[in-house]
Amino acid sequence: MQKYFIPKESLEKRIIDNSDAFHIIKVMRNRIGDQILVSDNDKTYLAEIASLENNKVSFEIVKEETGNNEMPVFVTIFQGYPKGDKFEDIIKHSTELGAYEFYGVMMKRSIVKIDEKKKVSKLERFNKIAKEAAEQSYRDILPKVVDIIELKKIDFSSYDYKILCFEESAKQNENSNFKNIIKKLKMNDKVAVVIGPEGGIDESEVKYLESKGFISCALGPRILRTETAAFYVLSSISYEMELK
Amino acid sequence: MQKYFIPKESLEKRIIDNSDAFHIIKVMRNRIGDQILVSDNDKTYLAEIASLENNKVSFEIVKEETGNNEMPVFVTIFQGYPKGDKFEDIIKHSTELGAYEFYGVMMKRSIVKIDEKKKVSKLERFNKIAKEAAEQSYRDILPKVVDIIELKKIDFSSYDYKILCFEESAKQNENSNFKNIIKKLKMNDKVAVVIGPEGGIDESEVKYLESKGFISCALGPRILRTETAAFYVLSSISYEMELK
Repeated sequence: MQKYFIPKESLEKRIIDNSDAFHIIKVMRNRIGDQILVSDNDKTYLAEIASLENNKVSFEIVKEETGNNEMPVFVTIFQGYPKGDKFEDIIKHSTELGAYEFYGVMMKRSIVKIDEKKKVSKLERFNKIAKEAAEQSYRDILPKVVDIIELKKIDFSSYDYKILCFEESAKQNENSNFKNIIKKLKMNDKVAVVIGPEGGIDESEVKYLESKGFISCALGPRILRTETAAFYVLSSISYEMELK
Repeated sequence: MQKYFIPKESLEKRIIDNSDAFHIIKVMRNRIGDQILVSDNDKTYLAEIASLENNKVSFEIVKEETGNNEMPVFVTIFQGYPKGDKFEDIIKHSTELGAYEFYGVMMKRSIVKIDEKKKVSKLERFNKIAKEAAEQSYRDILPKVVDIIELKKIDFSSYDYKILCFEESAKQNENSNFKNIIKKLKMNDKVAVVIGPEGGIDESEVKYLESKGFISCALGPRILRTETAAFYVLSSISYEMELK
């Protein structure tokens, strides 16, 4: 069953009239009486379609669903801004894997530059990708792509654990820092994960992050591409905390 | 340092003269005296470039490297053949994450059809992607994309553990089968992992695989896309077995 994150107002009026209506009518080809899941990013409801016309869908609520599909911890991915479409893939799959929110981070070895004008449309697109992935993977909440920002402008003070994914640690056969942290995580902890762009993290950035309380971690013995690191981190946390 | 998987003959002659030579000369812009890693898919050596000319690189061996970057178990990914470029991304990132080999599997809900002629060129391309990913991630061995094959033609009899990634298990809040298997793995075990295509696995296929000894497993409570499942499996195995 398809899930839709809709504005609070839409939920109150029991009407969907944006691109989700297009998706319901044209992509899913739903009919009157079909069931969907709707969420206002707070609660999720099982709903039944009451009418469909001209890109407008009305529905009735059948019952509240008690979802329990969220990670027990809040993982923020601080992704060194990569080239091409990579950040989109990272957002898409990391949303399925349970990430709480994302920042694109301009780091020394980021090659792409994003000006303020571009940033608005980029963030809009990234959040659309997160929404689609959250709906498809039955998330209870909608992860947000908060900002594209310079490393030094980020306030890391509110995080309980701070993980720096560092390929040099893998080369030096470090193999315990990551698991040590994950084993300590408790319900509702806030976890910051910093991942460098393609060229890696500059030494001065490593020092800066360590001064902010980050622990350099290898993610296994192999050198992961920038777009693979978040998948490893999130999968491992899910494996450790969500599976019995 | 860049790693190159080269034919045994190349290693014996100390000469690289294929597309890797192009990569060394034109992409990496190496010079005489620069060091590279070369492997004949058996042993890895530190090598020093002795000459570069017209797409031909000669080298001298400095010393044998004792790599230890391989997973302690052999994981074969049986990927329900997906649409578009997804299988390429799966091969790329799963190679970084330590997969041993791959099969593209034609399943009931696979939409793409591959004829025999197309298959040869597809496999060639897929193996090239695996080679690049293996070199970039410092694998000690080169994972192989063995075949594109129908489900019923696969012989699963030699595997020690058989994991069926099944999204219906996630919907039913099953949360222990996967971890139970991973906790049992021992050095050199052979693990078969079957992942359905986009539309999922048909009920008859689930029954068939269960009759072959597969255990249906949820990979956490969220519904993962077909291209994300292998990342979850491999990351979890690495986390469990390779980190302390």
